[in-house]
Amino acid sequence: MDRRLIEVNQDRLQRDMQRLSRIGMGERGITRRSYTPEDVEARSFVAGLMQEASLDVRIDAVGNLFGRRQGAKPDLPVIMVGSHIDTVPQGGMFDGALGVLGGIEAVRAMNEAGVCTEHPVEVVSFAEEEGAWGSGTLGSRVFVGDVRAEELDRVVTGANSLKQLMLESGLEPDDFENAARPYPVAGYIELHVEQGGVLEQERLQIGIVTGIVGITRGSIVVQGKANHAGTTPMHMRDDALVKAAPLITYVYQEALRQESVVATIGRVGVSPGAVNVIPGKVELSLELRSMDDSKVELLLDRIRRKVELAEQAELRAGLAKGGVKMHALVMQAIENVCRGADVLYKKMPSGAGHDAMCMARICPTGMLFVPSKGGMSHSPDEFTHWADAARGAMVLANAVIDLDSTIS
Amino acid sequence: MDRRLIEVNQDRLQRDMQRLSRIGMGERGITRRSYTPEDVEARSFVAGLMQEASLDVRIDAVGNLFGRRQGAKPDLPVIMVGSHIDTVPQGGMFDGALGVLGGIEAVRAMNEAGVCTEHPVEVVSFAEEEGAWGSGTLGSRVFVGDVRAEELDRVVTGANSLKQLMLESGLEPDDFENAARPYPVAGYIELHVEQGGVLEQERLQIGIVTGIVGITRGSIVVQGKANHAGTTPMHMRDDALVKAAPLITYVYQEALRQESVVATIGRVGVSPGAVNVIPGKVELSLELRSMDDSKVELLLDRIRRKVELAEQAELRAGLAKGGVKMHALVMQAIENVCRGADVLYKKMPSGAGHDAMCMARICPTGMLFVPSKGGMSHSPDEFTHWADAARGAMVLANAVIDLDSTIS
Repeated sequence: MDRRLIEVNQDRLQRDMQRLSRIGMGERGITRRSYTPEDVEARSFVAGLMQEASLDVRIDAVGNLFGRRQGAKPDLPVIMVGSHIDTVPQGGMFDGALGVLGGIEAVRAMNEAGVCTEHPVEVVSFAEEEGAWGSGTLGSRVFVGDVRAEELDRVVTGANSLKQLMLESGLEPDDFENAARPYPVAGYIELHVEQGGVLEQERLQIGIVTGIVGITRGSIVVQGKANHAGTTPMHMRDDALVKAAPLITYVYQEALRQESVVATIGRVGVSPGAVNVIPGKVELSLELRSMDDSKVELLLDRIRRKVELAEQAELRAGLAKGGVKMHALVMQAIENVCRGADVLYKKMPSGAGHDAMCMARICPTGMLFVPSKGGMSHSPDEFTHWADAARGAMVLANAVIDLDSTIS
Repeated sequence: MDRRLIEVNQDRLQRDMQRLSRIGMGERGITRRSYTPEDVEARSFVAGLMQEASLDVRIDAVGNLFGRRQGAKPDLPVIMVGSHIDTVPQGGMFDGALGVLGGIEAVRAMNEAGVCTEHPVEVVSFAEEEGAWGSGTLGSRVFVGDVRAEELDRVVTGANSLKQLMLESGLEPDDFENAARPYPVAGYIELHVEQGGVLEQERLQIGIVTGIVGITRGSIVVQGKANHAGTTPMHMRDDALVKAAPLITYVYQEALRQESVVATIGRVGVSPGAVNVIPGKVELSLELRSMDDSKVELLLDRIRRKVELAEQAELRAGLAKGGVKMHALVMQAIENVCRGADVLYKKMPSGAGHDAMCMARICPTGMLFVPSKGGMSHSPDEFTHWADAARGAMVLANAVIDLDSTIS
C-alpha cells in the first residue's frame, strides 16, 4: 500500500458503543432479542447514526438495516461491512455491535478524509443473528435467499410465530422474498470480537479470519440399569454414569492431542436423575469444530470406536455443517492494511458462526477479529479494549478502500 | 419352635394383591399418591378386607389405617404388622402393599388356625410412606409423635398445603397430635420386598433385616470456566466436566473396594448446560449408605481428600442420618420360624428406608424381605414370585405368634 491510511475516532466509537449498550441493559448484562422493543429501539438508534453520517437508510422486510454511501460509479456492486445488534440474553456490548458501529465509524472516517470509493459502500446490521427465537443468522440468510416461509411461520413464543413478532415490531415480513439478493454485492467484510482468547494470549491486535469452522454435532448415549441406590450392592450395579465418565475424559484428551479441532461435551442428561437412583441412561452432547472437515472425521471415528468398545454405548450423529472459507482477495485487503499500519496480526479460523458465513455464498467475504479480554463472550464480562476496538474499525475502513481498487 | 407352623393361602393373597394393583393402574405402572382419589379408594378396599377378616377398623387423623384383632389379654400392648399402600409415580404392585395385605393374610391364617395370641395384633397401613408430597414416612412419623404442624402446613401442590390435601380426602388432620403414640406397642414387624437383587442372586427365600442403613448426602461441586465451545482452543480450556469425570470414577471404585457401603452419583448438573458452551460448573449429587456409620465416614474422608486434590473442587455436606438397628427379639422370632420351616434365609441390612425405621423409636421392631425379581423396584417391572410373597406372609404370621410368647 502506498496510499496513506485513514484514521478513525476512538472516542466517538466508544461513545456510540456505550450509548447502544444502554438499550436493553439489565442488572446482569444486555438483553436485546430480535423484534422486541429493545431491538426496535437499538435499530432506530443505529439508523440515526447512519443518517448523521449522511448514509441513505433502508430497512428490509425482516429488519435488516442498511446505510448506503454512494460511490463514484454508482452502478458498480456494493461493498458491504457490518454485523448485527441483537444479543444473547444477558450478553455483552461488543458481540455484533462492534461490527455495525465500527462500520459506521469507518464510513465517517472516509467522509472526514474525503475518500471517494468507486463502489458504493453499505453498512449493514443483520437481524436475528443470535437466534433468540431459534433462527440464528436469519437476517443474513434472508438476504442471501436461503430462508423459506415455513421458518417464519414457526411458533416461537406463546402462540406467536416469528412472523407475528416481526409484524408487531413494525416490519412487513410477508415481503421477505423481495429482501433476498436485492442487488449484486462486490464483497462483505465483518469486524467482530474474537470471542476466544488466542489474540490476547499471543499479544496480537488483529486476527484475519481464514474461514469459519464446520460444526458436527451428535450425542453419546450410554445405557445402564436404573436401580435403587440403597438396596443395590456396588458389585451388582450397571451404572450408566460410571460407564460414561471415561468417555468424557477420552473425548477431551483426544481433541487435545489433535491440532486445529475442538471437541466439547456441554450437556449431560442423566436418567432418571434422582440422588437415590443409580443412573440408567446417560446422554452426552458432543460437538466438534474444525476448518478441516477431515480432522473432524478422524476425531469422530476415534470417538466412535472408543464408544463402541464401551458396554451398551453408541454414538448418534446429528447436524454436520462443513467449514466456510474466507475469500483470498478480502483477506489480502485486510492483510495489506495490517502490514501498512504495523499492526500485529495472525491468520486464524473463526470457531463461531457469523453472518459472514452466509454472505460467503453470494460474494467475496472476509472477517477480522479484535482481541476479547479473557476470551469471554456471550456474557456481561465480554470486553475489548477501546484502542483495540478502534484499531479494528481503522483496519476495516482501510480494507474497504483497498478492496475498492482490487475487486470488480 | 415345637409348635406347628400355620399356613397362609397363596391364591387369596395373590388375588387381593392383584385387586389392589388395579387401583391407580395406568398405561405404565401404578400411581397412588397419598390423599388422591386413588389412595382413598385403595384405603377403602383394604379396610373392607380388614372387616372381612373380622378386624376392628380405625383410620387416624392423617390416614393411617388400623385393623385390630383382640388378644386373650386385651390390656397387653399391641403387636403390629404392616407397611403402606401408597406408591411412587408409575410404581409397582409389591412395594408396601405386600406388607399390608400379607399382614391381613397372616391374620386370616391365624383366624383359620384358631390361634389366639395373648397380645392384641394390629395390621397397619401407614400413610404417605413414599413421600409423594415430600414428606416420606409421614404416617409412621405421626404415629410415633415425630411430626410438627409446620410440616402439614407446607404448600405442596398449586396453592394446597398437605393439610388441605388431607382435608379434601376426608381426613381431619387438625387432630394429628392425637394420632401420636395412641397406645403402647409391644412390637412391630414389617414384611417388604427386598428392592435389591441379593436374595435372588444368592437363591435365598427370606432376608432377616438387621437394620436400616444410614444415609449421608452431599454434593461435589467443580468449578471451571464457561466459554465458547468454538472459539476456545483445547489447551486454553478449563472444563469443569472434564475435571469432574475422574471423580465419578473414583467414587465408584472406592465404594467397590469397601464392603458394606454403597455410594451413588445419581444427578449431574452442568452449567450453563448448552451444547456449544464449555461447562463452567458441574455439581454431582453424592449419596453414601451403610449400616456402619464409620464405613461412611471413612469413604467420605477418602472422597473429600480426592476432591480437594482436584482444581477448584469441593465436597459439600448435606443430610446425614445414622443407621437404625432392628431388635434382637424380633429378629430371633423371624429366624425361629425360618429354621422351623426350612426356609433359606440370610441376615442383611436394608438399603432403603421404611416405616420400620420410625417404629424402631417406640418399640422392638423387625423386618423381613422376600426376593425382588432382578432387584427392581419403584418401577412397573417390580415383581416377586407369588410363592415367595406367600412364604413371606407365612413367616410373618408365625413370627407374630412366636413374638407373642417372648415379648412383654
